[in-house]
Amino acid sequence: MKLLDGVHLSGIIRREIAIRVMEHCSNQRRSPHLAAILVGNNPASQAYVRNKIKACEEVGFGSTLIKKPETTSEQEVLELIAELNQSKEIDGYIVQLPLPRHIDEEKINLAIDPIKDVDGFHPNNFGRMALGLPALKPATPKGIMMLLERYQIETDGKHCVVLGRSNIVGTPISLLMSKKTKPGNATVTIAHSRTHDLAALCRSADMIIAALGIPKFLKADMVKDGAVIIDVGINKIADETHPKGYRLVGDVDFESVKEKCSAITPVPGGVGPMTITALLDNTWETYAKTHSINL
Amino acid sequence: MKLLDGVHLSGIIRREIAIRVMEHCSNQRRSPHLAAILVGNNPASQAYVRNKIKACEEVGFGSTLIKKPETTSEQEVLELIAELNQSKEIDGYIVQLPLPRHIDEEKINLAIDPIKDVDGFHPNNFGRMALGLPALKPATPKGIMMLLERYQIETDGKHCVVLGRSNIVGTPISLLMSKKTKPGNATVTIAHSRTHDLAALCRSADMIIAALGIPKFLKADMVKDGAVIIDVGINKIADETHPKGYRLVGDVDFESVKEKCSAITPVPGGVGPMTITALLDNTWETYAKTHSINL
Repeated sequence: MKLLDGVHLSGIIRREIAIRVMEHCSNQRRSPHLAAILVGNNPASQAYVRNKIKACEEVGFGSTLIKKPETTSEQEVLELIAELNQSKEIDGYIVQLPLPRHIDEEKINLAIDPIKDVDGFHPNNFGRMALGLPALKPATPKGIMMLLERYQIETDGKHCVVLGRSNIVGTPISLLMSKKTKPGNATVTIAHSRTHDLAALCRSADMIIAALGIPKFLKADMVKDGAVIIDVGINKIADETHPKGYRLVGDVDFESVKEKCSAITPVPGGVGPMTITALLDNTWETYAKTHSINL
Repeated sequence: MKLLDGVHLSGIIRREIAIRVMEHCSNQRRSPHLAAILVGNNPASQAYVRNKIKACEEVGFGSTLIKKPETTSEQEVLELIAELNQSKEIDGYIVQLPLPRHIDEEKINLAIDPIKDVDGFHPNNFGRMALGLPALKPATPKGIMMLLERYQIETDGKHCVVLGRSNIVGTPISLLMSKKTKPGNATVTIAHSRTHDLAALCRSADMIIAALGIPKFLKADMVKDGAVIIDVGINKIADETHPKGYRLVGDVDFESVKEKCSAITPVPGGVGPMTITALLDNTWETYAKTHSINL
């Protein structure tokens, strides 16, 4: 069994990005700059944003964290977005989700300039990706594709079952995996809560991408010998033996499945860090585009 | 076996559209208007465009056919598009594909105002559809969804195999069928030229949507008893007994498959007319939006 180590691989890719920054940026040309808007005090969101900002420092990007109170109005967020769209100092930005209930996430998403949309959720980018055109791709599916590419996982003609059809993971990864690309070119099945006999479907898969948000959902008896397992889940489960009182587990029952599969991502340390690495790569991409750097 | 009769159903839906036109349009308010740009002399394209224009007349839409010679430059087509984008008299328009080789289809597609993009191929519409937002949807997949809805074909939780991953049919229909909608909510597998053991995959399907462009590809021994078959193929095969020297067949071997399935679309007379009906519906949709008609 090969461990698909997102921490290790992220280290390699982030060093590559850091080298590009050193080569291309100087006193004459500022570094790439990522901004993040965080509204409210959701602890998980705070942790995610903190990790993204830290990753920027790691590769030599500038970063700006814009923290706003829970009571911020939709209009205020829209005005902030208009400013960021105009800014010549900021290459890309994200609006950390979820937003407080009184703010319409769709409206916010549509206000983001697609050129700076490093989360890849604007319809323009999503549509370009779906059509196979160059696009800023959502970070999690892009991170998975980078992982498959660097670990040279063969996907051509394989049957890939995607568990979950969210706009953030399931739908975009199924699109990317079905395209005539490498990695990609897989026969893709999108499964979800309405799917009959999910266990049998999973057993027929050469690769399973689990993104349902159900702790340890995928058990060993649902996995074919030698399958490749990508675990996108990040679930908190109570654990008194941990200092925080909980620990993180994926959608895959790692301990049992790891004995059966040919490759697997751990949680934490698999898809999570790759998601942030993909976000850095998107920020570099939009920076390189506006600064006419060809790589 | 139920014949999913696209001619019959199109007749019903087009009458419904015609009634809406009569109800909402008058001397004070012009009818919906569709324009079509046709470049060159491709006989199939000429026939398609002719059918679309004829369908407009049938429902009381205005229509404009803009015929340009094969030698028209890309710039000229772009200028034409800019005019149509500005026009207050035209609600939607299509650029008939394929275009002559010296014209970049992607560039043309991106120039179309998404509001008037009744073919639904602009990334903005495609992305909105992929994200499950309201959008102008590509005509063929939309026509298939209308057919499934009106014939009350149960798709919830069913395994739907889509043969082909084109941007025009395979990719968008797989997106639509996987969404939490009715029809939809299916477990969708996107299969293509690289798929291993396509026959076994097809035999496992409750529904097959064939859009490969290979005459009579799907045979009876690839179909499960009681499956629903949607045939998107339109292929010319030589036939001396026909006045034109050829006849049209689908991607499905209709004569053998019809004995095994529970429902099937014929070719011609299935998905083809539904595609044009969906185009009319898109034109109505964009007209209703700009004229603030709520239905």
